[in-house]
Amino acid sequence: MIYFDNSATTQPYPDVLETAQTVAMNYFANPSSAHPAGEASSSLLEQARKQFGQLLGYQSQEIYFTASGTEANNWVFQAILQQLKVIHPHKNKVLISAVEHPSITNQIPLLQQRGFEVILLEVDGYGRLDVDKLEDHLADDVLLLSTIAVNNEVGTLQPFKEIETLLTKYPQIIWHVDAVQAMTTQMELVKRSRIDLLTLSSHKFHGIRGLGVLAQRQRVEKGIWVYGGGQERGLRSGTENLPAIVAGAKALRMTQDEQIETKAKLKTFQEQIVQQFKALNWEVFGYPYTAEHIIAVALPPLPGEVILNAFAEESLFVSTTSACSSRKPSTHHTLKAMGIPDAISKSTIRISLASTNTLAEVEQLLLAIERITQKLSAHK
Amino acid sequence: MIYFDNSATTQPYPDVLETAQTVAMNYFANPSSAHPAGEASSSLLEQARKQFGQLLGYQSQEIYFTASGTEANNWVFQAILQQLKVIHPHKNKVLISAVEHPSITNQIPLLQQRGFEVILLEVDGYGRLDVDKLEDHLADDVLLLSTIAVNNEVGTLQPFKEIETLLTKYPQIIWHVDAVQAMTTQMELVKRSRIDLLTLSSHKFHGIRGLGVLAQRQRVEKGIWVYGGGQERGLRSGTENLPAIVAGAKALRMTQDEQIETKAKLKTFQEQIVQQFKALNWEVFGYPYTAEHIIAVALPPLPGEVILNAFAEESLFVSTTSACSSRKPSTHHTLKAMGIPDAISKSTIRISLASTNTLAEVEQLLLAIERITQKLSAHK
Repeated sequence: MIYFDNSATTQPYPDVLETAQTVAMNYFANPSSAHPAGEASSSLLEQARKQFGQLLGYQSQEIYFTASGTEANNWVFQAILQQLKVIHPHKNKVLISAVEHPSITNQIPLLQQRGFEVILLEVDGYGRLDVDKLEDHLADDVLLLSTIAVNNEVGTLQPFKEIETLLTKYPQIIWHVDAVQAMTTQMELVKRSRIDLLTLSSHKFHGIRGLGVLAQRQRVEKGIWVYGGGQERGLRSGTENLPAIVAGAKALRMTQDEQIETKAKLKTFQEQIVQQFKALNWEVFGYPYTAEHIIAVALPPLPGEVILNAFAEESLFVSTTSACSSRKPSTHHTLKAMGIPDAISKSTIRISLASTNTLAEVEQLLLAIERITQKLSAHK
Repeated sequence: MIYFDNSATTQPYPDVLETAQTVAMNYFANPSSAHPAGEASSSLLEQARKQFGQLLGYQSQEIYFTASGTEANNWVFQAILQQLKVIHPHKNKVLISAVEHPSITNQIPLLQQRGFEVILLEVDGYGRLDVDKLEDHLADDVLLLSTIAVNNEVGTLQPFKEIETLLTKYPQIIWHVDAVQAMTTQMELVKRSRIDLLTLSSHKFHGIRGLGVLAQRQRVEKGIWVYGGGQERGLRSGTENLPAIVAGAKALRMTQDEQIETKAKLKTFQEQIVQQFKALNWEVFGYPYTAEHIIAVALPPLPGEVILNAFAEESLFVSTTSACSSRKPSTHHTLKAMGIPDAISKSTIRISLASTNTLAEVEQLLLAIERITQKLSAHK
């Protein structure tokens, strides 16, 4: 198989898997245990936390581990937002970009029920936040602004520099960034001291499944998310997933070390793939305002599932936009926010790259695109 | 080192680690992806869910995965309880045994804030629920009863048969059982069709860290715990931790297969260890109403930390009661509920066994207990 579904999950690096295995075997003790084996686990845990902090530009004590990026996003909008409201009872506005991940947008009804006024921020035809409209909404009664760094369906990058500039006038607004899809090529985009809360997911950068990160600046009000034994500074209890944490720190360091090279390589791949699709009259979304590793295209009126299967028959694994929704009736809320009609968005597939993809694989893909287009066009 | 802290965490079985590694490597695709690799992951996931169901006496679709037992307990008391209240607006009582794990008791202030009346159920000097008092509290306005199967500090077993009998008159009361400490020797205790909600943690039965289970009977009202892509039947979103899930199913099967043997072996070990402590005038708690794998003892007025260190110097790793609290000032809320004065409970240590412990290790322990007692008695 040739795997082009890296935004759903990446292949864990063999070295990372080996680290996880070693930790699981040799550091199996609970970091909360007071005996020497527990202390060794605890010290390894804090070392990994420090590594995450250094790689992302946070202090160690600002790094909190969860089981997924989704969990981190729920922590933000439930526990932290609730706490912000307690501190600022007269503020209740929450600004959310219309192209956030479902782990954020699906919380909106709950937020409304809890008395928050949620404003969905519009995007343009590329999926980019409309900065002027954002400016109109920024105000003293805004508690939190949430902007995804790299959109998961289309790959669109948000104009973080402009957003950051706008926010200088509103230092009290908490800026949350979902950077789950950003690590492959856009680590630099999210290394900004103005970002208050940052969400990551380890399996999106060749770590193992079961680990998310929520980086929280010390200046941000804390909210208890999971009650219990007091792990994660009392905010998210539960025995720490040490193998995933240590492996995750390693995966992020490797991702950082190879970032420039990966970015350049995937940029070339992306250009070739996009050109091929364009040459064969596919619709291409978001490009060139996308991260280097995500390509969303459509061949209407063919359904995305049919296109995906045509690729799968060639052992090329792609996705119908996000993995979260690809086994359920398609929703494509990003494409909808971009103003793409349903008739076109239901034909969309996503090709997502990673450092593990090779030129030979891309060459096979380019040929396959041609064959598949011919074959499918006969059925149009 | 000789490891006697299995209630904090067990050593993962080598076969289980190997399974996790194989799944991480060969089934790295996201179960939500529609391509064949995603479908293979999805089918493996559902197979593991079915195995958990069969081993615990639930239907596949009644098994829900979390990242920890703590998370499962938070799901019960936040999302599910909240939903129960919506359905039954005139009921607001929650009965919680005084010896539940902190992942339950630390939620009590939140529950009270949300308008629930929480009644802490008293226990006797062994840590056993007072069944008569429980009967007094059972009523039509009770939403939920929560009883830990095997207490984590002392190992006390709860009188489930009597509780079950009392509950026949109140079929509408949801019975939640925290069985996190039960798998080593007491799987049979918690296999009861009357139990509505069951919490497990994989690393307590030689699985890997980062996996909890919440078994929910179909008859129980569902509550959304984590919002997002819709995994776990829409109730707990986030990419599934497939390596931990498949490894966990294997660990539970192995635990089940060797249960009778382990139970018999650890019963002998426990008897020898308890007799040795008693012969040397230590206080022994809960025994003989404890599970075979947990022993809590004290040598007042010596602090638990001093005793733990004396064992650690002999490379014997034990715990000052629960791991969750052992690196923080001791609280010993179970011992307190049992009426043990602080002066004695702060001297308590916990020895917790597992199938991985050998007779040779126990023999070393027995000799060490004698040496340590002599040495420490000199300091009393």
